[in-house]
Amino acid sequence: MNKTQVTVLGPKGTFTEVAARKIFSEPEFIYCDTPYDIFDSVNSGTEYGVVAIENSLEGSVNSTMDCLIEYDLKIIGEVVLDINLCLAAGPRTDKKEINTIISHTHALAQCKKFISKNFPDARLQRHESTAAAMGEIKNLCGFAAIGPKESAEIYHLKVLYEDIQDAPSQTRFIVISKKEGNGKKTSIIFALKDEPGILYQVLKDFADSSINLTKIESRPSKKKLGEYLFFVDFEGSLKDKKAGYVIDSIKDKTTYLKILGSY
Amino acid sequence: MNKTQVTVLGPKGTFTEVAARKIFSEPEFIYCDTPYDIFDSVNSGTEYGVVAIENSLEGSVNSTMDCLIEYDLKIIGEVVLDINLCLAAGPRTDKKEINTIISHTHALAQCKKFISKNFPDARLQRHESTAAAMGEIKNLCGFAAIGPKESAEIYHLKVLYEDIQDAPSQTRFIVISKKEGNGKKTSIIFALKDEPGILYQVLKDFADSSINLTKIESRPSKKKLGEYLFFVDFEGSLKDKKAGYVIDSIKDKTTYLKILGSY
Repeated sequence: MNKTQVTVLGPKGTFTEVAARKIFSEPEFIYCDTPYDIFDSVNSGTEYGVVAIENSLEGSVNSTMDCLIEYDLKIIGEVVLDINLCLAAGPRTDKKEINTIISHTHALAQCKKFISKNFPDARLQRHESTAAAMGEIKNLCGFAAIGPKESAEIYHLKVLYEDIQDAPSQTRFIVISKKEGNGKKTSIIFALKDEPGILYQVLKDFADSSINLTKIESRPSKKKLGEYLFFVDFEGSLKDKKAGYVIDSIKDKTTYLKILGSY
Repeated sequence: MNKTQVTVLGPKGTFTEVAARKIFSEPEFIYCDTPYDIFDSVNSGTEYGVVAIENSLEGSVNSTMDCLIEYDLKIIGEVVLDINLCLAAGPRTDKKEINTIISHTHALAQCKKFISKNFPDARLQRHESTAAAMGEIKNLCGFAAIGPKESAEIYHLKVLYEDIQDAPSQTRFIVISKKEGNGKKTSIIFALKDEPGILYQVLKDFADSSINLTKIESRPSKKKLGEYLFFVDFEGSLKDKKAGYVIDSIKDKTTYLKILGSY
Protein backbone atom coordinates (compact mmCIF):
# COMPACT_ATOMS: atom_id res chain seq x y z
CA MET A 1 0.00 0.00 0.00
CA ASN A 2 1.25 3.45 -0.86
CA LYS A 3 2.06 5.79 2.00
CA THR A 4 0.16 9.07 2.34
CA GLN A 5 2.23 12.23 1.90
CA VAL A 6 1.58 14.70 4.73
CA THR A 7 3.36 18.01 5.25
CA VAL A 8 3.88 18.99 8.91
CA LEU A 9 5.89 21.46 10.95
CA GLY A 10 9.48 20.28 11.32
CA PRO A 11 11.88 19.13 12.52
CA LYS A 12 10.95 15.53 13.38
CA GLY A 13 8.94 15.11 16.56
CA THR A 14 6.90 18.33 16.71
CA PHE A 15 3.41 18.34 18.25
CA THR A 16 2.10 18.84 14.70
CA GLU A 17 3.67 15.50 13.71
CA VAL A 18 2.22 13.88 16.86
CA ALA A 19 -1.22 15.23 15.85
CA ALA A 20 -0.82 14.00 12.25
CA ARG A 21 -0.01 10.47 13.46
CA LYS A 22 -3.42 10.39 15.16
CA ILE A 23 -5.10 10.95 11.80
CA PHE A 24 -3.00 9.09 9.23
CA SER A 25 -2.13 5.42 9.64
CA GLU A 26 0.68 5.24 7.05
CA PRO A 27 2.05 8.80 6.79
CA GLU A 28 5.16 9.82 4.92
CA PHE A 29 6.08 13.18 6.41
CA ILE A 30 7.44 16.23 4.62
CA TYR A 31 8.83 18.75 7.14
CA CYS A 32 8.44 22.53 6.76
CA ASP A 33 9.44 25.52 8.87
CA THR A 34 6.20 27.56 9.07
CA PRO A 35 2.43 27.26 8.51
CA TYR A 36 2.95 29.28 5.29
CA ASP A 37 5.34 26.62 3.97
CA ILE A 38 2.83 23.88 4.81
CA PHE A 39 0.04 25.64 2.91
CA ASP A 40 2.49 26.19 0.02
CA SER A 41 3.42 22.53 -0.02
CA VAL A 42 -0.20 21.36 -0.20
CA ASN A 43 -0.97 24.03 -2.79
CA SER A 44 1.90 22.68 -4.92
CA GLY A 45 0.70 19.11 -4.86
CA THR A 46 1.31 17.37 -1.52
CA GLU A 47 -1.93 15.54 -0.73
CA TYR A 48 -2.36 16.68 2.89
CA GLY A 49 -1.00 19.16 5.40
CA VAL A 50 -1.50 19.46 9.17
CA VAL A 51 -1.28 22.81 10.99
CA ALA A 52 -2.11 24.10 14.47
CA ILE A 53 -4.99 26.60 14.48
CA GLU A 54 -5.64 27.31 18.16
CA ASN A 55 -4.13 26.61 21.58
CA SER A 56 -6.22 26.89 24.73
CA LEU A 57 -3.58 29.03 26.49
CA GLU A 58 -1.99 30.96 23.63
CA GLY A 59 -5.10 31.61 21.51
CA SER A 60 -5.31 31.51 17.73
CA VAL A 61 -2.34 30.82 15.49
CA ASN A 62 -2.40 34.00 13.45
CA SER A 63 -0.33 32.74 10.53
CA THR A 64 -2.70 29.77 10.05
CA MET A 65 -5.73 32.09 10.06
CA ASP A 66 -4.00 34.33 7.49
CA CYS A 67 -3.21 31.30 5.29
CA LEU A 68 -6.84 30.11 5.39
CA ILE A 69 -7.78 33.44 3.82
CA GLU A 70 -4.89 33.54 1.36
CA TYR A 71 -4.83 29.98 -0.03
CA ASP A 72 -7.63 28.24 -1.85
CA LEU A 73 -7.47 25.03 0.21
CA LYS A 74 -10.09 23.05 2.12
CA ILE A 75 -10.25 21.92 5.74
CA ILE A 76 -10.97 18.19 5.64
CA GLY A 77 -10.33 17.13 9.24
CA GLU A 78 -9.34 18.19 12.73
CA VAL A 79 -7.78 16.73 15.86
CA VAL A 80 -7.43 18.12 19.38
CA LEU A 81 -4.24 17.18 21.21
CA ASP A 82 -3.47 17.42 24.94
CA ILE A 83 -0.14 19.20 25.14
CA ASN A 84 2.04 17.16 27.50
CA LEU A 85 5.50 18.56 28.00
CA CYS A 86 8.46 16.55 29.31
CA LEU A 87 11.98 17.42 30.43
CA ALA A 88 14.63 15.37 28.67
CA ALA A 89 18.42 15.30 28.57
CA GLY A 90 21.26 13.48 26.82
CA PRO A 91 22.06 9.97 28.04
CA ARG A 92 25.17 11.12 29.90
CA THR A 93 23.55 14.05 31.73
CA ASP A 94 22.38 13.45 35.30
CA LYS A 95 19.41 15.37 36.82
CA LYS A 96 21.74 17.05 39.32
CA GLU A 97 24.04 18.38 36.61
CA ILE A 98 21.40 20.34 34.72
CA ASN A 99 22.32 24.01 34.56
CA THR A 100 20.60 25.06 31.30
CA ILE A 101 17.04 24.41 30.11
CA ILE A 102 16.30 25.06 26.48
CA SER A 103 12.89 25.27 24.75
CA HIS A 104 10.39 27.48 22.93
CA THR A 105 9.36 30.62 24.86
CA HIS A 106 5.79 29.34 25.22
CA ALA A 107 6.92 25.98 26.60
CA LEU A 108 9.30 27.64 29.08
CA ALA A 109 6.44 29.92 30.18
CA GLN A 110 4.07 26.97 30.55
CA CYS A 111 6.51 25.17 32.87
CA LYS A 112 7.47 28.17 35.04
CA LYS A 113 6.36 26.60 38.34
CA PHE A 114 8.02 23.27 37.59
CA ILE A 115 11.30 24.97 36.71
CA SER A 116 11.37 27.27 39.73
CA LYS A 117 10.61 24.34 42.05
CA ASN A 118 13.05 21.82 40.57
CA PHE A 119 15.72 23.89 38.82
CA PRO A 120 15.61 27.33 40.46
CA ASP A 121 19.17 28.16 39.37
CA ALA A 122 19.00 26.91 35.79
CA ARG A 123 19.70 29.29 32.94
CA LEU A 124 16.74 29.40 30.52
CA GLN A 125 17.61 29.46 26.83
CA ARG A 126 14.98 30.25 24.20
CA HIS A 127 14.67 28.23 21.01
CA GLU A 128 12.22 28.72 18.16
CA SER A 129 11.08 25.09 18.28
CA THR A 130 10.64 22.58 21.12
CA ALA A 131 11.49 19.67 18.81
CA ALA A 132 14.58 21.37 17.41
CA ALA A 133 15.73 22.13 20.97
CA MET A 134 15.45 18.40 21.76
CA GLY A 135 17.46 17.61 18.64
CA GLU A 136 20.40 19.77 19.68
CA ILE A 137 21.18 18.74 23.25
CA LYS A 138 22.02 15.03 23.03
CA ASN A 139 25.76 15.59 23.45
CA LEU A 140 25.62 18.77 25.53
CA CYS A 141 26.54 18.21 29.17
CA GLY A 142 24.34 20.04 31.71
CA PHE A 143 21.60 20.76 29.16
CA ALA A 144 17.97 19.67 29.30
CA ALA A 145 15.14 20.47 26.86
CA ILE A 146 11.37 20.80 27.26
CA GLY A 147 9.14 19.38 24.53
CA PRO A 148 7.01 16.46 23.37
CA LYS A 149 7.92 13.02 24.75
CA GLU A 150 7.77 11.67 21.20
CA SER A 151 10.48 14.09 20.22
CA ALA A 152 12.71 13.04 23.16
CA GLU A 153 12.42 9.46 21.93
CA ILE A 154 13.25 10.35 18.33
CA TYR A 155 16.42 12.16 19.42
CA HIS A 156 17.44 9.36 21.84
CA LEU A 157 17.18 11.49 24.97
CA LYS A 158 16.34 10.31 28.51
CA VAL A 159 12.92 11.52 29.68
CA LEU A 160 13.55 12.84 33.21
CA TYR A 161 10.09 14.22 34.05
CA GLU A 162 6.72 13.94 32.28
CA ASP A 163 3.64 16.22 32.27
CA ILE A 164 5.56 19.15 33.71
CA GLN A 165 3.26 21.92 32.39
CA ASP A 166 1.78 24.18 35.10
CA ALA A 167 -1.75 23.90 33.68
CA PRO A 168 -3.36 21.55 31.17
CA SER A 169 -3.52 22.87 27.63
CA GLN A 170 -4.89 21.66 24.34
CA THR A 171 -4.13 22.49 20.74
CA ARG A 172 -6.53 22.08 17.84
CA PHE A 173 -4.96 21.03 14.53
CA ILE A 174 -6.62 21.00 11.12
CA VAL A 175 -5.94 18.88 8.04
CA ILE A 176 -5.79 20.84 4.80
CA SER A 177 -6.08 19.55 1.25
CA LYS A 178 -7.03 20.57 -2.28
CA LYS A 179 -9.85 18.03 -2.27
CA GLU A 180 -13.25 18.55 -0.64
CA GLY A 181 -13.85 16.82 2.67
CA ASN A 182 -17.01 15.37 4.10
CA GLY A 183 -18.46 15.54 7.58
CA LYS A 184 -20.86 17.03 10.09
CA LYS A 185 -19.05 20.29 10.82
CA THR A 186 -18.48 23.18 8.41
CA SER A 187 -16.11 26.16 8.50
CA ILE A 188 -16.62 29.45 6.66
CA ILE A 189 -15.05 32.93 6.63
CA PHE A 190 -16.99 36.07 5.80
CA ALA A 191 -16.85 39.88 5.88
CA LEU A 192 -20.07 41.81 6.44
CA LYS A 193 -21.60 44.65 4.49
CA ASP A 194 -21.39 47.94 6.39
CA GLU A 195 -25.02 48.10 7.53
CA PRO A 196 -26.44 48.47 11.06
CA GLY A 197 -27.42 45.18 12.68
CA ILE A 198 -26.02 43.08 9.83
CA LEU A 199 -24.23 40.56 12.08
CA TYR A 200 -27.46 40.13 13.98
CA GLN A 201 -29.25 39.37 10.69
CA VAL A 202 -26.67 36.74 9.77
CA LEU A 203 -26.90 35.04 13.16
CA LYS A 204 -30.69 35.16 12.83
CA ASP A 205 -30.39 33.21 9.55
CA PHE A 206 -28.51 30.48 11.42
CA ALA A 207 -30.90 30.55 14.40
CA ASP A 208 -33.98 30.42 12.13
CA SER A 209 -32.57 27.28 10.49
CA SER A 210 -31.73 25.74 13.90
CA ILE A 211 -28.06 25.56 12.99
CA ASN A 212 -25.78 25.81 16.00
CA LEU A 213 -22.50 27.75 15.77
CA THR A 214 -19.59 26.04 17.54
CA LYS A 215 -17.18 28.91 16.97
CA ILE A 216 -17.33 32.57 16.03
CA GLU A 217 -14.10 34.48 15.97
CA SER A 218 -13.64 37.87 14.36
CA ARG A 219 -10.37 39.48 13.44
CA PRO A 220 -9.49 42.87 11.98
CA SER A 221 -9.41 42.59 8.16
CA LYS A 222 -5.95 44.21 8.07
CA LYS A 223 -7.27 46.40 5.28
CA LYS A 224 -9.33 49.05 7.02
CA LEU A 225 -9.96 50.00 10.66
CA GLY A 226 -13.34 48.73 11.86
CA GLU A 227 -13.59 46.03 9.16
CA TYR A 228 -13.64 42.45 10.44
CA LEU A 229 -13.41 38.92 9.08
CA PHE A 230 -15.55 36.34 10.84
CA PHE A 231 -14.32 32.75 11.19
CA VAL A 232 -17.39 30.64 11.87
CA ASP A 233 -17.75 26.88 12.48
CA PHE A 234 -21.24 25.39 12.53
CA GLU A 235 -22.86 22.02 13.08
CA GLY A 236 -23.98 20.53 9.80
CA SER A 237 -22.63 19.47 6.41
CA LEU A 238 -22.71 21.57 3.25
CA LYS A 239 -24.63 18.65 1.77
CA ASP A 240 -27.56 19.33 4.15
CA LYS A 241 -30.36 21.35 2.60
CA LYS A 242 -30.65 23.74 5.53
CA ALA A 243 -26.90 24.56 5.48
CA GLY A 244 -27.16 25.32 1.77
CA TYR A 245 -30.16 27.54 2.47
CA VAL A 246 -28.29 29.53 5.16
CA ILE A 247 -25.22 29.97 2.95
CA ASP A 248 -27.48 31.35 0.22
CA SER A 249 -29.27 33.70 2.59
CA ILE A 250 -26.09 35.16 4.11
CA LYS A 251 -24.50 35.77 0.67
CA ASP A 252 -26.53 38.98 0.32
CA LYS A 253 -25.24 40.26 3.65
CA THR A 254 -21.54 39.74 3.03
CA THR A 255 -18.85 41.40 0.93
CA TYR A 256 -16.69 38.26 1.12
CA LEU A 257 -17.67 34.64 1.74
CA LYS A 258 -15.30 31.68 1.67
CA ILE A 259 -16.36 28.08 2.28
CA LEU A 260 -13.53 26.16 3.93
CA GLY A 261 -15.37 22.86 3.74
CA SER A 262 -17.15 20.20 5.78
CA TYR A 263 -15.20 17.64 7.80
CA MET B 1 -1.20 75.62 35.06
CA ASN B 2 -0.05 72.15 36.05
CA LYS B 3 1.01 69.82 33.29
CA THR B 4 -0.89 66.55 32.77
CA GLN B 5 1.09 63.38 33.41
CA VAL B 6 0.69 60.91 30.55
CA THR B 7 2.46 57.56 30.20
CA VAL B 8 3.29 56.58 26.61
CA LEU B 9 5.47 54.09 24.76
CA GLY B 10 9.09 55.21 24.73
CA PRO B 11 11.59 56.32 23.77
CA LYS B 12 10.80 59.93 22.83
CA GLY B 13 9.10 60.37 19.47
CA THR B 14 7.04 57.17 19.13
CA PHE B 15 3.73 57.19 17.26
CA THR B 16 2.08 56.73 20.67
CA GLU B 17 3.59 60.04 21.80
CA VAL B 18 2.46 61.68 18.53
CA ALA B 19 -1.08 60.38 19.21
CA ALA B 20 -1.01 61.60 22.82
CA ARG B 21 -0.04 65.12 21.70
CA LYS B 22 -3.27 65.23 19.68
CA ILE B 23 -5.28 64.70 22.88
CA PHE B 24 -3.39 66.54 25.63
CA SER B 25 -2.44 70.19 25.30
CA GLU B 26 0.12 70.34 28.13
CA PRO B 27 1.41 66.79 28.51
CA GLU B 28 4.33 65.74 30.68
CA PHE B 29 5.34 62.35 29.29
CA ILE B 30 6.48 59.29 31.19
CA TYR B 31 8.08 56.75 28.84
CA CYS B 32 7.60 52.98 29.18
CA ASP B 33 8.76 49.96 27.17
CA THR B 34 5.53 47.96 26.66
CA PRO B 35 1.73 48.31 26.86
CA TYR B 36 1.92 46.29 30.12
CA ASP B 37 4.21 48.92 31.66
CA ILE B 38 1.82 51.70 30.58
CA PHE B 39 -1.16 49.98 32.23
CA ASP B 40 1.00 49.40 35.33
CA SER B 41 1.98 53.05 35.45
CA VAL B 42 -1.65 54.26 35.29
CA ASN B 43 -2.68 51.61 37.79
CA SER B 44 -0.03 52.93 40.19
CA GLY B 45 -1.17 56.53 40.02
CA THR B 46 -0.22 58.25 36.74
CA GLU B 47 -3.33 60.12 35.64
CA TYR B 48 -3.44 58.97 31.99
CA GLY B 49 -1.87 56.46 29.62
CA VAL B 50 -2.04 56.16 25.83
CA VAL B 51 -1.68 52.80 24.04
CA ALA B 52 -2.19 51.51 20.50
CA ILE B 53 -5.09 49.05 20.22
CA GLU B 54 -5.40 48.35 16.48
CA ASN B 55 -3.57 49.01 13.24
CA SER B 56 -5.35 48.75 9.91
CA LEU B 57 -2.58 46.58 8.40
CA GLU B 58 -1.31 44.64 11.40
CA GLY B 59 -4.59 44.03 13.20
CA SER B 60 -5.17 44.14 16.96
CA VAL B 61 -2.42 44.81 19.47
CA ASN B 62 -2.69 41.61 21.50
CA SER B 63 -0.89 42.87 24.59
CA THR B 64 -3.26 45.86 24.85
CA MET B 65 -6.31 43.58 24.56
CA ASP B 66 -4.85 41.33 27.28
CA CYS B 67 -4.24 44.35 29.54
CA LEU B 68 -7.83 45.59 29.11
CA ILE B 69 -8.95 42.27 30.58
CA GLU B 70 -6.32 42.13 33.30
CA TYR B 71 -6.34 45.69 34.69
CA ASP B 72 -9.28 47.49 36.25
CA LEU B 73 -8.89 50.68 34.21
CA LYS B 74 -11.29 52.68 32.05
CA ILE B 75 -11.09 53.81 28.44
CA ILE B 76 -11.77 57.56 28.45
CA GLY B 77 -10.79 58.60 24.93
CA GLU B 78 -9.49 57.52 21.55
CA VAL B 79 -7.63 58.95 18.58
CA VAL B 80 -6.95 57.56 15.11
CA LEU B 81 -3.59 58.46 13.58
CA ASP B 82 -2.47 58.18 9.95
CA ILE B 83 0.84 56.36 10.06
CA ASN B 84 3.26 58.37 7.93
CA LEU B 85 6.74 56.94 7.75
CA CYS B 86 9.82 58.88 6.73
CA LEU B 87 13.42 57.98 5.95
CA ALA B 88 15.93 60.00 7.95
CA ALA B 89 19.70 60.04 8.43
CA GLY B 90 22.36 61.81 10.45
CA PRO B 91 23.32 65.33 9.30
CA ARG B 92 26.58 64.14 7.75
CA THR B 93 25.11 61.22 5.77
CA ASP B 94 24.29 61.83 2.12
CA LYS B 95 21.47 59.94 0.32
CA LYS B 96 24.01 58.22 -1.94
CA GLU B 97 26.03 56.90 0.99
CA ILE B 98 23.19 54.96 2.61
CA ASN B 99 24.04 51.27 2.86
CA THR B 100 22.01 50.24 5.94
CA ILE B 101 18.36 50.95 6.76
CA ILE B 102 17.26 50.30 10.32
CA SER B 103 13.70 50.14 11.70
CA HIS B 104 11.01 47.98 13.27
CA THR B 105 10.14 44.83 11.25
CA HIS B 106 6.63 46.16 10.56
CA ALA B 107 7.93 49.50 9.28
CA LEU B 108 10.52 47.81 7.05
CA ALA B 109 7.74 45.55 5.69
CA GLN B 110 5.46 48.54 5.09
CA CYS B 111 8.14 50.31 3.02
CA LYS B 112 9.26 47.30 0.96
CA LYS B 113 8.49 48.85 -2.44
CA PHE B 114 10.10 52.17 -1.54
CA ILE B 115 13.27 50.43 -0.35
CA SER B 116 13.61 48.12 -3.35
CA LYS B 117 13.12 51.06 -5.73
CA ASN B 118 15.43 53.55 -4.02
CA PHE B 119 17.88 51.46 -2.02
CA PRO B 120 17.91 48.00 -3.66
CA ASP B 121 21.34 47.15 -2.23
CA ALA B 122 20.83 48.42 1.32
CA ARG B 123 21.23 46.03 4.21
CA LEU B 124 18.05 45.95 6.34
CA GLN B 125 18.55 45.89 10.10
CA ARG B 126 15.67 45.13 12.46
CA HIS B 127 15.09 47.17 15.60
CA GLU B 128 12.38 46.72 18.20
CA SER B 129 11.28 50.37 17.97
CA THR B 130 11.14 52.87 15.10
CA ALA B 131 11.80 55.77 17.48
CA ALA B 132 14.73 54.04 19.16
CA ALA B 133 16.21 53.27 15.74
CA MET B 134 16.04 57.00 14.93
CA GLY B 135 17.74 57.75 18.24
CA GLU B 136 20.74 55.57 17.47
CA ILE B 137 21.88 56.58 14.00
CA LYS B 138 22.75 60.27 14.29
CA ASN B 139 26.50 59.68 14.22
CA LEU B 140 26.52 56.49 12.15
CA CYS B 141 27.79 57.03 8.61
CA GLY B 142 25.82 55.23 5.88
CA PHE B 143 22.85 54.55 8.17
CA ALA B 144 19.25 55.66 7.66
CA ALA B 145 16.20 54.90 9.83
CA ILE B 146 12.49 54.61 9.06
CA GLY B 147 10.03 56.07 11.55
CA PRO B 148 7.82 59.01 12.51
CA LYS B 149 8.90 62.45 11.22
CA GLU B 150 8.43 63.79 14.75
CA SER B 151 11.02 61.35 15.97
CA ALA B 152 13.52 62.37 13.25
CA GLU B 153 13.17 65.96 14.45
CA ILE B 154 13.63 65.05 18.12
CA TYR B 155 16.87 63.22 17.35
CA HIS B 156 18.15 65.99 15.02
CA LEU B 157 18.16 63.87 11.88
CA LYS B 158 17.68 65.03 8.28
CA VAL B 159 14.37 63.87 6.81
CA LEU B 160 15.32 62.54 3.33
CA TYR B 161 11.94 61.19 2.17
CA GLU B 162 8.42 61.53 3.61
CA ASP B 163 5.33 59.28 3.33
CA ILE B 164 7.34 56.33 2.08
CA GLN B 165 4.89 53.58 3.18
CA ASP B 166 3.66 51.34 0.34
CA ALA B 167 0.01 51.67 1.42
CA PRO B 168 -1.81 54.06 3.76
CA SER B 169 -2.33 52.74 7.28
CA GLN B 170 -4.01 53.99 10.41
CA THR B 171 -3.59 53.15 14.08
CA ARG B 172 -6.26 53.59 16.73
CA PHE B 173 -4.99 54.62 20.16
CA ILE B 174 -6.97 54.68 23.41
CA VAL B 175 -6.55 56.80 26.53
CA ILE B 176 -6.74 54.83 29.79
CA SER B 177 -7.33 56.17 33.29
CA LYS B 178 -8.62 55.15 36.71
CA LYS B 179 -11.40 57.74 36.43
CA GLU B 180 -14.64 57.23 34.49
CA GLY B 181 -14.91 58.95 31.14
CA ASN B 182 -17.90 60.45 29.43
CA GLY B 183 -19.03 60.30 25.81
CA LYS B 184 -21.20 58.82 23.11
CA LYS B 185 -19.37 55.54 22.55
CA THR B 186 -19.05 52.64 25.01
CA SER B 187 -16.72 49.65 25.13
CA ILE B 188 -17.43 46.36 26.92
CA ILE B 189 -15.92 42.87 27.10
CA PHE B 190 -17.97 39.75 27.74
CA ALA B 191 -17.87 35.93 27.67
CA LEU B 192 -21.03 34.04 26.83
CA LYS B 193 -22.77 31.21 28.63
CA ASP B 194 -22.42 27.92 26.75
CA GLU B 195 -25.94 27.80 25.29
CA PRO B 196 -27.03 27.44 21.64
CA GLY B 197 -27.83 30.75 19.93
CA ILE B 198 -26.67 32.83 22.90
CA LEU B 199 -24.65 35.33 20.83
CA TYR B 200 -27.68 35.79 18.63
CA GLN B 201 -29.77 36.58 21.75
CA VAL B 202 -27.24 39.19 22.91
CA LEU B 203 -27.15 40.88 19.50
CA LYS B 204 -30.94 40.80 19.50
CA ASP B 205 -30.93 42.75 22.78
CA PHE B 206 -28.85 45.45 21.09
CA ALA B 207 -30.96 45.41 17.91
CA ASP B 208 -34.24 45.58 19.89
CA SER B 209 -32.93 48.70 21.66
CA SER B 210 -31.78 50.23 18.33
CA ILE B 211 -28.22 50.38 19.58
CA ASN B 212 -25.66 50.08 16.77
CA LEU B 213 -22.43 48.10 17.30
CA THR B 214 -19.36 49.79 15.83
CA LYS B 215 -17.02 46.89 16.60
CA ILE B 216 -17.32 43.25 17.52
CA GLU B 217 -14.13 41.29 17.88
CA SER B 218 -13.86 37.92 19.54
CA ARG B 219 -10.71 36.25 20.76
CA PRO B 220 -10.04 32.84 22.30
CA SER B 221 -10.30 33.14 26.10
CA LYS B 222 -6.88 31.47 26.50
CA LYS B 223 -8.49 29.29 29.15
CA LYS B 224 -10.43 26.68 27.23
CA LEU B 225 -10.73 25.74 23.54
CA GLY B 226 -13.96 27.05 22.04
CA GLU B 227 -14.43 29.75 24.70
CA TYR B 228 -14.30 33.34 23.43
CA LEU B 229 -14.14 36.85 24.81
CA PHE B 230 -16.07 39.48 22.85
CA PHE B 231 -14.78 43.03 22.62
CA VAL B 232 -17.74 45.18 21.66
CA ASP B 233 -18.00 48.93 21.02
CA PHE B 234 -21.44 50.46 20.65
CA GLU B 235 -22.97 53.85 19.95
CA GLY B 236 -24.38 55.36 23.12
CA SER B 237 -23.33 56.41 26.62
CA LEU B 238 -23.71 54.32 29.75
CA LYS B 239 -25.74 57.27 31.04
CA ASP B 240 -28.43 56.61 28.42
CA LYS B 241 -31.39 54.63 29.70
CA LYS B 242 -31.43 52.22 26.77
CA ALA B 243 -27.73 51.37 27.16
CA GLY B 244 -28.34 50.61 30.84
CA TYR B 245 -31.27 48.44 29.85
CA VAL B 246 -29.20 46.41 27.35
CA ILE B 247 -26.35 45.94 29.82
CA ASP B 248 -28.87 44.59 32.34
CA SER B 249 -30.45 42.25 29.82
CA ILE B 250 -27.15 40.75 28.61
CA LYS B 251 -25.89 40.13 32.15
CA ASP B 252 -27.99 36.95 32.33
CA LYS B 253 -26.41 35.65 29.14
CA THR B 254 -22.78 36.13 30.08
CA THR B 255 -20.32 34.44 32.43
CA TYR B 256 -18.13 37.56 32.43
CA LEU B 257 -19.00 41.19 31.72
CA LYS B 258 -16.61 44.12 32.01
CA ILE B 259 -17.58 47.73 31.32
CA LEU B 260 -14.57 49.61 29.93
CA GLY B 261 -16.39 52.94 29.95
CA SER B 262 -17.93 55.62 27.74
CA TYR B 263 -15.79 58.15 25.92
